[in-house]
Amino acid sequence: MSKFWSSMVKRTEPYVPGEQVIQQDIVKLNTNENPYPPSPKVVEAIRVEMERNLQLYPSPTADDLRKTIGRQYGLAAEEVFVGNGSDEVLAFSFMAFFEPGQPIRFPDVTYSFYPVYAKLFDIPYEEVALNTDFTLPVDKFFRSEGGVILPNPNAPTSLYAELDLIEEIVKNNPDRVVIIDEAYIDFASRSAAEMIHQYDNLLVVQTTSKSRSLAGLRVGFAMGSPSLIEALVRIKDSFNSYTLDRLALVGAQAAFEDEAYFNETTAKIIATREQVTVELGQLGFTVLPSQANFVFARHERISAESLYDELKKEGILVRYFNKPGIDNYVRITIGTDKRMARLFETLKEILTT
Amino acid sequence: MSKFWSSMVKRTEPYVPGEQVIQQDIVKLNTNENPYPPSPKVVEAIRVEMERNLQLYPSPTADDLRKTIGRQYGLAAEEVFVGNGSDEVLAFSFMAFFEPGQPIRFPDVTYSFYPVYAKLFDIPYEEVALNTDFTLPVDKFFRSEGGVILPNPNAPTSLYAELDLIEEIVKNNPDRVVIIDEAYIDFASRSAAEMIHQYDNLLVVQTTSKSRSLAGLRVGFAMGSPSLIEALVRIKDSFNSYTLDRLALVGAQAAFEDEAYFNETTAKIIATREQVTVELGQLGFTVLPSQANFVFARHERISAESLYDELKKEGILVRYFNKPGIDNYVRITIGTDKRMARLFETLKEILTT
Repeated sequence: MSKFWSSMVKRTEPYVPGEQVIQQDIVKLNTNENPYPPSPKVVEAIRVEMERNLQLYPSPTADDLRKTIGRQYGLAAEEVFVGNGSDEVLAFSFMAFFEPGQPIRFPDVTYSFYPVYAKLFDIPYEEVALNTDFTLPVDKFFRSEGGVILPNPNAPTSLYAELDLIEEIVKNNPDRVVIIDEAYIDFASRSAAEMIHQYDNLLVVQTTSKSRSLAGLRVGFAMGSPSLIEALVRIKDSFNSYTLDRLALVGAQAAFEDEAYFNETTAKIIATREQVTVELGQLGFTVLPSQANFVFARHERISAESLYDELKKEGILVRYFNKPGIDNYVRITIGTDKRMARLFETLKEILTT
Repeated sequence: MSKFWSSMVKRTEPYVPGEQVIQQDIVKLNTNENPYPPSPKVVEAIRVEMERNLQLYPSPTADDLRKTIGRQYGLAAEEVFVGNGSDEVLAFSFMAFFEPGQPIRFPDVTYSFYPVYAKLFDIPYEEVALNTDFTLPVDKFFRSEGGVILPNPNAPTSLYAELDLIEEIVKNNPDRVVIIDEAYIDFASRSAAEMIHQYDNLLVVQTTSKSRSLAGLRVGFAMGSPSLIEALVRIKDSFNSYTLDRLALVGAQAAFEDEAYFNETTAKIIATREQVTVELGQLGFTVLPSQANFVFARHERISAESLYDELKKEGILVRYFNKPGIDNYVRITIGTDKRMARLFETLKEILTT
């Protein structure tokens, strides 16, 4: 604390991201990154761009990327906003749609950045208790005074709520914005983006960090009615004219253009996830039915905390949340088959000693 | 306006950046970019990095880059903060050090993003009138209730205030943060960074967009006492864990490591600037004594607005501000000698017709 800190700094409770490690031999299954590199076309697009005009500012409006993303979802560029990772897009969304004094709602087990944003911007919030099986108590999100934000699939539970449930929530908050945070949607099924033309209060946020293998490039986006997107643009243009650099712009665009690569890597991850779920079950784990690129699992005999520690000793990083209700679970990112084989080898050793 | 917009969106008055153009034949002298490409070592560093681990998140703490920048200024990594362009660093600084209800001060002729940030974060401000020769009325910045922000060299005037004047302002605001925005310092002389160990209320903000030829990569930074830097880190970690992507991190680092290239290109720009100042004088322009990579000039016969229009017709973009007190000036970025020759050719045609 310092006399120079604003009241905003004083009320922050910063987010702590999963550990980033440098050692090459670590098996990193803790931050839900894609185990496959980005499409070769991404690397090629960056190679071309880096040789020209890096000394000039990027496009402040990012029109080409917004058009490309819009095309994927049948939306116009005016219905798409892009930013420096979905975390920045979410931060701008808290600024644009939520209000001090009007409590918003999100699940009690969810992405732990939401309360961090809320504290930063002084927005009160109610944590809605999930059902005991971690599914959404849909009607508890109706008529929220300040708005709603929830991830689908949820993190860290990995559970996907069918679109008719999401629609109920959107429909029952006609005067407030409902943000559906779809970081993991490409490993699940239908995106709420298909409802954007029906509901002007729906904002769908996605990222290239998971299914597009671009966590290192920082590109996230939001889709919604032109008036919601205009609000985000106004916030961005009052904050930082150019949030995406030239290489990120062309890299993300190439990723969206290479649909074959995207389909192939996503299918591989889903196949591995299904296999991992079965094998974890055989080792005595209870695994939630995941629709994400990670699984959320607990073991009948060994605590999640010990499991995290034992795996770490053996060079395998998973994520453990020291939070009531989920502190008996570990979150394990789906890696390549080879890395998952190493996980299982180690798990078997831990469980037999 | 929409019922979904927060009060924050409603009070924004977004910044409008200089035009970005796509045509190759335009002579772009309007956004103070460097006319020279970045160091070949920057491109090489990006080439290596893009082939590895783009699917993994970047370092959230950016320690390597902070150390590298710190070394240049005799500072520790804890005294350096890095962000997505100096615009983001300035936005975080407004959040971290300025307070609603406590008016800050900045010059009436200055970087036009300051009032935009102030409106966004609801921070009242007083615009201090510059002296008639555009120099700083130093004592008017003493004992500011909320803090001070000013660029040195100032933009768009291009004037540099000697460090003893800056020190007076810092010294006479012992309980408030004074932000010196040094986007153009490498084209001037001594940076206020040398006073950081003396004054714990001094924050110096710089960018790689101008002197390091990296406008397209979005890397800015701040230097100050560890407690000021900690405040910025807390804001960032409540907003977006990873604001700099992997390519920006290694690119900026390589730029700082290639001092020879930096010295060579900066010296060339300064030499061109001095030549341009003389030649503009010969054409009847009054040119302020620039210590930046642009000049601020007015002509005795032709209005700045006509000059802007006439030049644009001929494919040359400069910047014109429709603001009382400076609306008779154009701001011209220093380009290569060849581009400046084309400017002079065109100016001579405009002035003789």
